[in-house]
Amino acid sequence: MIIIMEPSATKEQIEKVENRLEELGCKTHPIYGEVKTVIGVIGDKRHLDNDQLMMYPGVENIVPIMKPYKLASKEIQEKSIVKVGDVKIGGDELVVMAGPCAVEDKDDFFVTAHKVKDAGAKILRGGAFKPRTSPYSFQGLQEEGLKMLDTARKETGLKIVTEVIDTRDVETVAKYSDVLQIGARNMQNFRLLQEAGMTEKPVLLKRGLAATIEEWLMAAEYVMSEGNSDIILCERGIRTFETETRNTMDISAILVARELSHLPVVADPSHASGSWKYVSGLSKAAVAAGADGLIIEVHNDPATAMCDGTQSLKPDKFANLMESLKPIAEAVDRNI
Amino acid sequence: MIIIMEPSATKEQIEKVENRLEELGCKTHPIYGEVKTVIGVIGDKRHLDNDQLMMYPGVENIVPIMKPYKLASKEIQEKSIVKVGDVKIGGDELVVMAGPCAVEDKDDFFVTAHKVKDAGAKILRGGAFKPRTSPYSFQGLQEEGLKMLDTARKETGLKIVTEVIDTRDVETVAKYSDVLQIGARNMQNFRLLQEAGMTEKPVLLKRGLAATIEEWLMAAEYVMSEGNSDIILCERGIRTFETETRNTMDISAILVARELSHLPVVADPSHASGSWKYVSGLSKAAVAAGADGLIIEVHNDPATAMCDGTQSLKPDKFANLMESLKPIAEAVDRNI
Amino acid sequence: MIIIMEPSATKEQIEKVENRLEELGCKTHPIYGEVKTVIGVIGDKRHLDNDQLMMYPGVENIVPIMKPYKLASKEIQEKSIVKVGDVKIGGDELVVMAGPCAVEDKDDFFVTAHKVKDAGAKILRGGAFKPRTSPYSFQGLQEEGLKMLDTARKETGLKIVTEVIDTRDVETVAKYSDVLQIGARNMQNFRLLQEAGMTEKPVLLKRGLAATIEEWLMAAEYVMSEGNSDIILCERGIRTFETETRNTMDISAILVARELSHLPVVADPSHASGSWKYVSGLSKAAVAAGADGLIIEVHNDPATAMCDGTQSLKPDKFANLMESLKPIAEAVDRNI
Amino acid sequence: MIIIMEPSATKEQIEKVENRLEELGCKTHPIYGEVKTVIGVIGDKRHLDNDQLMMYPGVENIVPIMKPYKLASKEIQEKSIVKVGDVKIGGDELVVMAGPCAVEDKDDFFVTAHKVKDAGAKILRGGAFKPRTSPYSFQGLQEEGLKMLDTARKETGLKIVTEVIDTRDVETVAKYSDVLQIGARNMQNFRLLQEAGMTEKPVLLKRGLAATIEEWLMAAEYVMSEGNSDIILCERGIRTFETETRNTMDISAILVARELSHLPVVADPSHASGSWKYVSGLSKAAVAAGADGLIIEVHNDPATAMCDGTQSLKPDKFANLMESLKPIAEAVDRNI
Repeated sequence: MIIIMEPSATKEQIEKVENRLEELGCKTHPIYGEVKTVIGVIGDKRHLDNDQLMMYPGVENIVPIMKPYKLASKEIQEKSIVKVGDVKIGGDELVVMAGPCAVEDKDDFFVTAHKVKDAGAKILRGGAFKPRTSPYSFQGLQEEGLKMLDTARKETGLKIVTEVIDTRDVETVAKYSDVLQIGARNMQNFRLLQEAGMTEKPVLLKRGLAATIEEWLMAAEYVMSEGNSDIILCERGIRTFETETRNTMDISAILVARELSHLPVVADPSHASGSWKYVSGLSKAAVAAGADGLIIEVHNDPATAMCDGTQSLKPDKFANLMESLKPIAEAVDRNI
Repeated sequence: MIIIMEPSATKEQIEKVENRLEELGCKTHPIYGEVKTVIGVIGDKRHLDNDQLMMYPGVENIVPIMKPYKLASKEIQEKSIVKVGDVKIGGDELVVMAGPCAVEDKDDFFVTAHKVKDAGAKILRGGAFKPRTSPYSFQGLQEEGLKMLDTARKETGLKIVTEVIDTRDVETVAKYSDVLQIGARNMQNFRLLQEAGMTEKPVLLKRGLAATIEEWLMAAEYVMSEGNSDIILCERGIRTFETETRNTMDISAILVARELSHLPVVADPSHASGSWKYVSGLSKAAVAAGADGLIIEVHNDPATAMCDGTQSLKPDKFANLMESLKPIAEAVDRNI
Repeated sequence: MIIIMEPSATKEQIEKVENRLEELGCKTHPIYGEVKTVIGVIGDKRHLDNDQLMMYPGVENIVPIMKPYKLASKEIQEKSIVKVGDVKIGGDELVVMAGPCAVEDKDDFFVTAHKVKDAGAKILRGGAFKPRTSPYSFQGLQEEGLKMLDTARKETGLKIVTEVIDTRDVETVAKYSDVLQIGARNMQNFRLLQEAGMTEKPVLLKRGLAATIEEWLMAAEYVMSEGNSDIILCERGIRTFETETRNTMDISAILVARELSHLPVVADPSHASGSWKYVSGLSKAAVAAGADGLIIEVHNDPATAMCDGTQSLKPDKFANLMESLKPIAEAVDRNI
Repeated sequence: MIIIMEPSATKEQIEKVENRLEELGCKTHPIYGEVKTVIGVIGDKRHLDNDQLMMYPGVENIVPIMKPYKLASKEIQEKSIVKVGDVKIGGDELVVMAGPCAVEDKDDFFVTAHKVKDAGAKILRGGAFKPRTSPYSFQGLQEEGLKMLDTARKETGLKIVTEVIDTRDVETVAKYSDVLQIGARNMQNFRLLQEAGMTEKPVLLKRGLAATIEEWLMAAEYVMSEGNSDIILCERGIRTFETETRNTMDISAILVARELSHLPVVADPSHASGSWKYVSGLSKAAVAAGADGLIIEVHNDPATAMCDGTQSLKPDKFANLMESLKPIAEAVDRNI
């Protein structure tokens, strides 16, 4: 940590800051510049509250040197693989998760499940609890939906990923599913993160729509600090000024997250664009950039879908996409 | 609602959309332009899911004509006043809420409480449950903090506003406080909104840091749709590219929210700026813009505060600010 | 400047960086932390190119300690007053500039000019060269417009502020006007800034719509580095995700710019909101926040205005606003 | 165009708007809804100024149905190919432009030029006029730099792309180069766009850092409306809240621009990320997404580069990248 003092800071003020830091177990190294003094601080400051130090008279700014996350960082390991049964995310194989936005009609859902399996998906997605912007929109089939997911799992052999939106439901969702999804709007619902951290299920952690990559990794740190290290990061588009797409896929976030963290990273081109037209192009880009997997909305009959039909691929388009991804995966030393 | 068809849309495609809308109980009025056909739709479409219609072949775009919120809108009433005991928010009097970010040390907290009361604050703020970006930061005193708030209420006669961050705590927090605060990070924690909507306590609803005003009003709609109409909107700064302030106070949001909604609007200059230096100027600006109140961080000894000391005013600075707000409040026909 | 080395940086790499800095005339102070080494650098680095240093093997990041602007900073003076003839911007008096977006119809323009003068404006605004998003929109009357501005100046005694959008026009615009306006879209048109810096006319420098305050002050530095210190900063709203207003007035930018710089700061509530409905509220807020002046669009007949009619006040509304600003100005020790 | 009237709009107000539109040569179709009336307008309204109509009493909002650009849109043609001598951009071949940020040292520049040619680049980039955020940074070698570019062209046979930042230099830059680059900061320097539109040289038009795709296409429309249709769009990253990368490559912008426009689109991974570490991954992603080309910074000795060394690849890394792009290009039916 570097503490930058104001040009007008007095010797006493500088000493007071140094004394306080030494009380906290840190070593200090002041550098007296022509205009300002800066104090280099040695020692682990991740548990220190900068806000307090900022209030010391004469302190202008504090510059952290270390990243605020530790468990999610490369200090721990180079690359981790998250196992969902026999499916490994983060290894050589590119893992594709697919299925409808929400679980609605049973027949439709099972048809879609079988078709995405045939096309090569390894994990089935489908929402039972839906976080909707309007209280008047369809909120999901709740536990009934979870049961349909469970049945689909047994029928197809696919693993299940589904979203949890309330601390009170974590246990139930964990019972019926293989991967717990934390949605973008809940990326900083810290209690939900902690609760997910207390289960033994892998967590698919979507990036918040205005979150920095550091905040995203801090959200992972919340889950991990409770003892659950099986986190799959998911880039699903950020909010920008662009209106032609619902969100903007931050393709470099895939590269940066893999540079800063050992956690696997997947991309969600469906939510990132909000339009099925762009799902194929964005999927190819994400694979070329080195994503460890994709999560794609597929619906047997998008025009009757109760949510997000606009961004769903039909099963045959999805199958074509899976084919077209193969040479790109190969070009970056992955298989699919 | 206006449905814009693609230039290439066929007569059959247009008819299919019209038929579907008439099934849903709407009347349709197509307008055949030189390049595109648009379909005007009459009937209440707030419960309709546009995503489904977007999937009909030939549909290019859908333009809503009505706002998606109803209970929060001016269709219901011109201006509402939220009563917190005998304190009225939204009337002629400008209501100031003040206190520390988090409830920590008992003595300090009570000193601060008495001082903000003497300076003219009507409601005491203080966090018992703190949503912190890092799992390693102080998370609040939890129920012990709530009890301190309750004691302070009895001692000072001030009303209490405090944050709730978990659906499981809503009942407990409602028991000890007068106003439930929903923080910016939970503005789209829809379950928490619903749970708060089931209490009888007023809700202080902070705007999310990347939320539009429409999304903010939709969050209010969530609470209101459960039967609780006592919402106080709170502008607390949005995320922008600026780094000199922690967030950017959207001063026009106060004006827009009052134009679109009947709900009272208060401003939080402490979180908006992240720096006590700018709290006074922003408070004046918010009052001049027509805010119904302010929520300001005040701490007896900011340098020892366990969170957000940087943005806290000392009690004497707060008292000066209260004085300096008087002529501005008067200039916009309010009293303080 | 602080140079942060990577955890894996070797002793040789650290020495190479130090040697390079000493060649450049700086003194270096390395601090050897538990994980990383940081190098404190003493000496004026404003002319140094960080990009080069970043390329040295082992360098992780560079943290500047000093602001990159000097002439625009408080190092030079506490507060400067820009004189436009006998009108002083930055002193006790709040200066209001008003007039139509573009100079169009001569009669209308002169009527407006007289009315804003009667209401208390000191400077007349009006565009002769208009930067329009569409090549098919009205681009301004060009030199004919400048001549109308000149005539209005003579008739009313008001000073003139008008925009210049091309380096080739700077001389001509300077001839006919009292203040050169650099628009938001040209805030980083560095050649235009330099050219304006070579005139002897004060420059009204609008903040770019996605610019940070630091970039804004660097734009001022460009003008000042050519010898022209008469800069008036103008906050005119930044782009955010909000769509109810055209832009978002960054009210704290007024406070921050006055904290970091000695230059006077005015606000443009018309462009910030894009709607006449919000101009009055935002004007009051800007004055309460401490703005040194306002620039407001006023048009005698907004419905026939060839640009930005939506955000123009009618002269009588403007006169009312001027009245209502008086007690607020007084409350912050200014007069109008 | 659809005009939405306020709920309170009177019959007279609606008629006045209709009359005005009919005067302007449009046909109107009012639809009387339960709450609001909307007026459908038929006829080409691209030259109409919405601001004027917005001022008519009773008008709440105006919704355009047609895109505001025409020459840049698919109405004109499906896909255009821009020819730079015998190099075709927008066809089957993926065109790579490479070279240093700025032309500085002659020897270094020529070495780099030969190396990028050997690796397969078709166009040499290099700045002679540099738009720098600080007036104290290196501003480019100006005409001397242009002459070096010209010599390199003759020596290597590569085509030349270089930036122009001042209307007064357009003629000179056009003389020495094959493609005129308009930088991100000048995307809405409308005079510069017009001046470039009057030359016969292709224009590489970078997207502004906070510009929407529509604004970018409107900038292209400015150039095209002067008669020059040879525009190459260049996505170079937009500003977001992320700080780990200098900008954020909007990968979907490549897909959207190709959907909305016939113009070829290239990507600039060097400026998009600001870090050579991410250039390779982003290049692969852009090719997979369907970009028509890339523009990449390559410098023989990045540590001595006078600008943007941080984001420059060394020639051998660039050669490796060119190799690794081949299978990806092939996977999307392109060759390189």
